[in-house]
Amino acid sequence: MIATSDVVFFVPAVGIIGLLVVAYLGWSIKREKPGTKRMEEIAKYIQEGANAFLKRQYKTISIFIVILTIIIGLTLGFTQAIAFIFGSLLSLLAAYIGMNVAVRANVRTANAARKSPKKAFTLAFKGGAVMGLSVVSLSLLGISLLYLVFEKPELIVGFGFGASLAALFAQLGGGIYTKAADVGADLVGKVEAHIPEDDPRNPAVIADLVGDNVGDCAGRGADLFESFSDNIICAMILGVLFASLGKNAVIFPLITQAIGLIATIVGVFLIRGWKKLSPVQSFNLGLLVVGIICAVGFYFASIELLNDINVFYASLAGLIASLLVGLVAQYYTGMNMKPVKKIAESSQRGPAINIITGLSYGFQSAFFPTIIISAVIVFSYFITGAGVQGFYGIAAATLGILSTTGIIMSSDTFGPITDNADGIAEMSGIKKEVGESLEALDALGNTTKALTKAYAMACAGLSAVVIFLTYLKEAGLFDITSSTLPIINIANPLVLVGLFIGGALPFLFSALAIGATGKTAFVMVDEVRRQFKKIKGLLEGKAKPDYARCVDISTKNALKEMILPTLIAIIFPIVIGLIFGVEVLAGLLIGQTLSSIMLAPFFINVGGAWDNAKKYIEAGKFGGKGTPTHAAAVIGDTVGDPLKDVAGPSLHIFTKLVNMTALLFIPIFLAYAIL
Amino acid sequence: MIATSDVVFFVPAVGIIGLLVVAYLGWSIKREKPGTKRMEEIAKYIQEGANAFLKRQYKTISIFIVILTIIIGLTLGFTQAIAFIFGSLLSLLAAYIGMNVAVRANVRTANAARKSPKKAFTLAFKGGAVMGLSVVSLSLLGISLLYLVFEKPELIVGFGFGASLAALFAQLGGGIYTKAADVGADLVGKVEAHIPEDDPRNPAVIADLVGDNVGDCAGRGADLFESFSDNIICAMILGVLFASLGKNAVIFPLITQAIGLIATIVGVFLIRGWKKLSPVQSFNLGLLVVGIICAVGFYFASIELLNDINVFYASLAGLIASLLVGLVAQYYTGMNMKPVKKIAESSQRGPAINIITGLSYGFQSAFFPTIIISAVIVFSYFITGAGVQGFYGIAAATLGILSTTGIIMSSDTFGPITDNADGIAEMSGIKKEVGESLEALDALGNTTKALTKAYAMACAGLSAVVIFLTYLKEAGLFDITSSTLPIINIANPLVLVGLFIGGALPFLFSALAIGATGKTAFVMVDEVRRQFKKIKGLLEGKAKPDYARCVDISTKNALKEMILPTLIAIIFPIVIGLIFGVEVLAGLLIGQTLSSIMLAPFFINVGGAWDNAKKYIEAGKFGGKGTPTHAAAVIGDTVGDPLKDVAGPSLHIFTKLVNMTALLFIPIFLAYAIL
Repeated sequence: MIATSDVVFFVPAVGIIGLLVVAYLGWSIKREKPGTKRMEEIAKYIQEGANAFLKRQYKTISIFIVILTIIIGLTLGFTQAIAFIFGSLLSLLAAYIGMNVAVRANVRTANAARKSPKKAFTLAFKGGAVMGLSVVSLSLLGISLLYLVFEKPELIVGFGFGASLAALFAQLGGGIYTKAADVGADLVGKVEAHIPEDDPRNPAVIADLVGDNVGDCAGRGADLFESFSDNIICAMILGVLFASLGKNAVIFPLITQAIGLIATIVGVFLIRGWKKLSPVQSFNLGLLVVGIICAVGFYFASIELLNDINVFYASLAGLIASLLVGLVAQYYTGMNMKPVKKIAESSQRGPAINIITGLSYGFQSAFFPTIIISAVIVFSYFITGAGVQGFYGIAAATLGILSTTGIIMSSDTFGPITDNADGIAEMSGIKKEVGESLEALDALGNTTKALTKAYAMACAGLSAVVIFLTYLKEAGLFDITSSTLPIINIANPLVLVGLFIGGALPFLFSALAIGATGKTAFVMVDEVRRQFKKIKGLLEGKAKPDYARCVDISTKNALKEMILPTLIAIIFPIVIGLIFGVEVLAGLLIGQTLSSIMLAPFFINVGGAWDNAKKYIEAGKFGGKGTPTHAAAVIGDTVGDPLKDVAGPSLHIFTKLVNMTALLFIPIFLAYAIL
Repeated sequence: MIATSDVVFFVPAVGIIGLLVVAYLGWSIKREKPGTKRMEEIAKYIQEGANAFLKRQYKTISIFIVILTIIIGLTLGFTQAIAFIFGSLLSLLAAYIGMNVAVRANVRTANAARKSPKKAFTLAFKGGAVMGLSVVSLSLLGISLLYLVFEKPELIVGFGFGASLAALFAQLGGGIYTKAADVGADLVGKVEAHIPEDDPRNPAVIADLVGDNVGDCAGRGADLFESFSDNIICAMILGVLFASLGKNAVIFPLITQAIGLIATIVGVFLIRGWKKLSPVQSFNLGLLVVGIICAVGFYFASIELLNDINVFYASLAGLIASLLVGLVAQYYTGMNMKPVKKIAESSQRGPAINIITGLSYGFQSAFFPTIIISAVIVFSYFITGAGVQGFYGIAAATLGILSTTGIIMSSDTFGPITDNADGIAEMSGIKKEVGESLEALDALGNTTKALTKAYAMACAGLSAVVIFLTYLKEAGLFDITSSTLPIINIANPLVLVGLFIGGALPFLFSALAIGATGKTAFVMVDEVRRQFKKIKGLLEGKAKPDYARCVDISTKNALKEMILPTLIAIIFPIVIGLIFGVEVLAGLLIGQTLSSIMLAPFFINVGGAWDNAKKYIEAGKFGGKGTPTHAAAVIGDTVGDPLKDVAGPSLHIFTKLVNMTALLFIPIFLAYAIL
């Protein structure tokens, strides 16, 4: 056995190494040339728009952080307040670093593509890796340092709560921003004015490109930061169940994720424009190596720290589950699969049938991930010895998935960078020089994005369960020295009602998220129509559109609309907990988890399927572009936008934030609950 | 106290009186004149189409009845098999009688409208009352006779199971039939060929009119037959909890519903074309009188039979809840309310924004009914003395809602009769003679339909809970002599997984229901397009379309597609029960209840809102008919069709069928479960 005290320092050390690599990557991207003057100009628009949004968004979030810090400090004490500030600020910092480099990597990728497509790939992936490594390094550093100081994982729940809160704001705000701009640009530009995607004449085009960064980059970064942090903290708390192991089971999550970070660093340097490998091959190689290192790390950590091979099996089950969920998503959204083809085919009968067919496949697609997640829960629970010890097995399964967070996040951010690069190339008129190389990268980016979404789905469901189990422990509902299960009785009508109310929350939340995007898109459509009408010579390319105004619409509305849905996630669990106490609140937690894990894959898959059905037609099937069939598919795609990029991903965060809120405020409920 | 033996005979007697009234109403409708030859001809098309469908549908269902009778007989014994046959056949019979009269009342209503709009109203409502009274009378007769013979309510669970099975087939088959025809007729007829609704040149118009009868009449009749029957049986079983009252608490549900039937008969004769009252006023008067008689009946039955005023309060809470759910539905789908106006307004930005806005309101609308249902559960549970006795309070709340089933069902069937009458008037060229009187009735019909749907929502949620509580008792999970609650522990990961799988089922079911309608509509669109193209002179009114072919498409596909979703409702609970036993199965039951009560109002309200947004525009707002705004709203309306008329109402039955399956097969699970 290794001495606990030694390995604890190992984790922050690895975190610091991760940040050094981030600094190196950032430096190596900045020294590349950004290309022509026009390219630089466009990139600057994007940078300014993105930074302006983030600045204003962070200001709004800060107000909430200040208020909540005071509330937490007064009710739960100093430690949790400090942890909360740490969690929320580090989350925002990781997203900021990642996005800041991404908005520089985009133009340099476009420029590199003019000479060497392989170099463009290397650059874009490096840019993505900055986000991936920032997220994992800062989370590990923050948690391990807090643990070293406070020594009890339950005292730093505030860190996870802060991360969840920041993430929901970031994802919602960024999501509303990007989709309103996207829908506005597409509906008026493509459908009404018949100008191509990313055309500089489109007033919403800059807002659209900014959106890729603030939504897909910054939003997703904050999202994975919270998944990662919440899980580590909860797994550490559950580690107490293995009292016989001393602190080994408590630090196991930190150690395995630190190994995951090392694996990610190796992977990041493996994924580049190798001479003999295509981008896809290089990408797969990197993923494979990361997966193997993580698995080996889990194996040794399970044996050395826990003396229990079964925990290793549980984590392996988690990894396999995330792959299976990915396959399901691929089936329902993949370009050459039956659902997408059928949706494309049905577009021939008009937009209504396109949407009906899509909805049908979307609802279907939500069924299987739940079954897979259920199977992992049963397996990891039983193999680690049913009873409360089995809870740790479920946590281990989640850690298995999370160990690849860094590389998955890197490849996710790679997506918007290449998307932006392609847009910049289009707008600056160098499209001919770069040929199809950027589009090929963009296609790869879409694959990696789909992968991340499926990954996030598997994560979210299991994470929510892990937080729930941690909640049961912290609520004192079971005796950690016996292996008897705690009891949350849904045959008690009050708990049942808690479950129903919980189940209703994600519907309300989704309604608000979708509605906010619709409303903002609504204003955007009017503005783009207005500019086309009022600015003379715009469509002929003789006059410039007013980009700033569209950027402003997205910014203002996104900031306004992100607040109410976030409040729901905090206020409902607190009110129910204060009135009915911890058992009914447990019902609420499970109810909202269930609805969230059903609705999120529905939203994400149906949107992806509509998107690809449109692309399938654009590739020349069923008449191709410009036909009524294509127009029908564009409508489906537009409907899917707020579902797949706002409601779906936000729900993943929502469900965890509700659970974390409950977990954090347990002492208050135990002391003051009315019933 | 009244002697139990006396009152038991009271129930079948009232049932027989109800059937006599049915016979009288049927006779008085038939002796009316059906109008011109052309009218008779069209009515005959509809009658033949509807009868042919019902015949073939009943044949398919019979196969299932035979197979299941054998299975039930072999595993559960003779009594349950007999009860099962009774339940399924009486359900089919009630729907058959109701529809048979409806397809005669339609043409006679149209004819009466030529002379007196008030007489048309009386006739249409009489037609609807045949369905309402058949459903309630046959259910009461069947259950009370079985109870008189077998003496134990738990021995006649098969009756409810049979009713649920028949209902799901009827609603799904009828729903797919009617919506495929409706979508096909609208998409090609209205949108592409620009001919009005119910135009005789449209090849799918007869299928559409038939659909109103087999879907809205027969389907909904079977639906309410099962709600009514399931609840009475479960409440009777829960009556055993009041051992001190002898059989009084067991017969209480029968007595109160028999009083409800008497009230309905009074109401049916009150609602008619009074000289001094408008149809709406007369309708409201009838409802009010029925409500008062039912409430008084509940009051006396609670005092006399149970000596407990609190059961009366619980039933009153149920009645109020169904009203509140109705108000929520009215807000989200009402013509002059904010959601519908906003959806209509958003149509100006194209179909995608129309749909996004609708989805947002739809998800929102699902939130509040759940909160209302939760409040009723808490109230009725506590007021009747928390603990297992409180379960009876929840059952009483449901009985409160159900006592008005007869009158609600009557007014629901009134809808398709006036709808059909309007269609027949249009097709037979007598539209000018009847003026706007039929349209006014049609509008009232739409209101009563919306009322029924909200009513069904409140019913379905509470009924599912009541069946669940009955399941807990029958599974022997609590001791009826103590008041300690049974335990279904969702902190047990296995039960939690049961809950997740259960929660996933309604998504799979909805996917299949929506997909089936889409597929069938798909074929219908092609066929209508083909006829317009191939039959020369059709659009000019010189040639006749091939109605039969469209009727055939709907019939064949509806029968084929209704099977798989129904099997899901039966197979999943049996498999999970056999593998994991009754506690995990309880998790599944609650999971599927939760998802169903969330998805059903979403489907129903979003569809209603899109429908009315279209009508709002057609009334001249935002440019009115023929504008792109109207076209966008038509697309939203079409998307809503399979949601509001197939998936939504079917889910109400689905959730109860899953619960009834579990309840029926408990002895098998207790004996043979693997884990």
